[in-house]
Amino acid sequence: MAEATRQVTVALGERQYTIDIGRGLLAQPARLQAAIKARQVVVISNEVVAPLYLAHLQAALKDRQFAAVTLRDGEQEKRLESMLPVFDEMLVNGFDRDCQVVALGGGVIGDLAGFVAATYQRGVDFIQIPTTLLAMVDSSVGGKTGVNHPRGKNMIGAFHQPRAVLADLDVLETLPDREFLAGMAEVIKYALLGDREFLDWLEANLEAVMARDPEALSFVVERACQNKAAIVAADERESGQRALLNLGHTFGHAIEAALGYGEWLHGEAIGAGLCMAAALSERAGWLSPDERQRAETLVERTGLPTRAPGGIGSARFREFMARDKKNRGGALRLVLLRGLGDAIVTADYPAAALEATLASTDHG
Amino acid sequence: MAEATRQVTVALGERQYTIDIGRGLLAQPARLQAAIKARQVVVISNEVVAPLYLAHLQAALKDRQFAAVTLRDGEQEKRLESMLPVFDEMLVNGFDRDCQVVALGGGVIGDLAGFVAATYQRGVDFIQIPTTLLAMVDSSVGGKTGVNHPRGKNMIGAFHQPRAVLADLDVLETLPDREFLAGMAEVIKYALLGDREFLDWLEANLEAVMARDPEALSFVVERACQNKAAIVAADERESGQRALLNLGHTFGHAIEAALGYGEWLHGEAIGAGLCMAAALSERAGWLSPDERQRAETLVERTGLPTRAPGGIGSARFREFMARDKKNRGGALRLVLLRGLGDAIVTADYPAAALEATLASTDHG
Repeated sequence: MAEATRQVTVALGERQYTIDIGRGLLAQPARLQAAIKARQVVVISNEVVAPLYLAHLQAALKDRQFAAVTLRDGEQEKRLESMLPVFDEMLVNGFDRDCQVVALGGGVIGDLAGFVAATYQRGVDFIQIPTTLLAMVDSSVGGKTGVNHPRGKNMIGAFHQPRAVLADLDVLETLPDREFLAGMAEVIKYALLGDREFLDWLEANLEAVMARDPEALSFVVERACQNKAAIVAADERESGQRALLNLGHTFGHAIEAALGYGEWLHGEAIGAGLCMAAALSERAGWLSPDERQRAETLVERTGLPTRAPGGIGSARFREFMARDKKNRGGALRLVLLRGLGDAIVTADYPAAALEATLASTDHG
Repeated sequence: MAEATRQVTVALGERQYTIDIGRGLLAQPARLQAAIKARQVVVISNEVVAPLYLAHLQAALKDRQFAAVTLRDGEQEKRLESMLPVFDEMLVNGFDRDCQVVALGGGVIGDLAGFVAATYQRGVDFIQIPTTLLAMVDSSVGGKTGVNHPRGKNMIGAFHQPRAVLADLDVLETLPDREFLAGMAEVIKYALLGDREFLDWLEANLEAVMARDPEALSFVVERACQNKAAIVAADERESGQRALLNLGHTFGHAIEAALGYGEWLHGEAIGAGLCMAAALSERAGWLSPDERQRAETLVERTGLPTRAPGGIGSARFREFMARDKKNRGGALRLVLLRGLGDAIVTADYPAAALEATLASTDHG
């Protein structure tokens, strides 16, 4: 715990906030007390994370009115109905608009807790304590909150920025490999979409990252958050540039929806989605075969899937992709690569390149 | 239909919008087409209003992708679950972020449709076509959207400003008396809380208003919207002054909740709530007996209740009032009158004055 804490500031004017990245943050009551200031605090967590870390929060905040709601683990909990017991707990305890909602968990908990905070009495404070690599590098930055609908992922939600984020790297030590890998998909995404220097670094240091070397991880989380923060600060409400963060996601979301949420982890679907976006970009003539291969090799070295599961079929892929929130006026917009580290959002790609990319998934 | 259309602008920077107030607006396809610009439009209405006016919208927007969801009538529909069929309809039809949600109905429809618009794909455009006096003078201004929770009214929601509001005064001709009256409670509220000149006007012109004289109604809607717009523009997110709009509402919400939502109309509860706020203000020594009587007489002349229903009891009143969103740090904040046309938000009133006001409701 000798390492310094790194800080990333998300510059959003009056909604500006700081992400603290370091080891042992959850074991420091003073730090928790400084980040969570409200008199009334509700912590939303899940049955896997709560037994490990909830007691830290409870002890640090023992002079507050403290409530906790523990949901089941998994993507299937990310729905409107799961919010009801939380609202109930808050109302039973007389929580007012000055309360704070704390997310203690991964992306599912963060998105749901954020949406609870966005909508309880039309909006209260929100603090994120992400406990997965995915949540640290993705959902903790940017203020996207929400839940799934049976007909589409993240279809119901709000933009609601956290007041503070505490990323305790120690929690990654106990993260299952599959969850860790899922976070790596987003890490690689940042490198591919806009940070070629980070791409070089990842290729050179992937073994240390995968071995969860603390100094390597600290850099990865900081760099990923910096990349996301810069994009979000330029386009908070996703009217333009922010859609770049969806690299690999139009394909990935379709994979998740077609398989049924929870079958593949989000990050696994994104791993395959990144490779599909690179393959389409190659077919469009924008990436050289070598560049496409370089992207795919990096994904492959982590152990993430590089191909969609067989059997979905072009028609169902298109059906799910048609629901993507980037679409405008009926056109299917995708995030593609003009080069490594250089993504664009466009509906202007050869139709045959998309068709061939979808057809190639029928390898099962 | 010869009268000019009045316009009230709600000055909210980039979220600024205009309220058109006039007769026959729904019968003018060009006006509907100008207000509702999207390629994909979903109209949310209820089984009472839809048969009367939905066809106007459908005809005017026949070149758009048009969907409609008709809910049952009444406050009991204002809950999270009622939003699900709307999201379903929008997703089945492939609605994207450029779609517009149109509320065609009263306050329940407006609040629910606004919350749908606030949360569908994290926020889409919203157009209000209020069909009750209450909705025209209250929920069409200010961007408060949301639904009830069994433990409290409007406990789940968001701030989401409409893009445009069309208040067609002709729809008020067929409005049932009880609904019309309910709107009058809010009209009187604006006069009492901050517009003494309007109070004088109402006292002088109440017969014409109650007879639904079009010119009188047009003035009433315009003046009420101007009053609300000025307060909302100064305090969009209700951090201060905007709470003044809650005059009569802390008592009113408690009445509604204690009786069960839908037993008394919202406006009826507010009528009694206004009189309770005036009575407490008199007990605190801020209103003279004559002033208190003047407020009560105006409410009484409309035919609205001036007293809470018997049998709720002080304890249950306090229980429901404790959940009010204005409360901070455990103190019960109320909107009270320092004079007619001069309201304040305060927790600094004699405890005995509140106790006596609650005790006086046990007249049943």
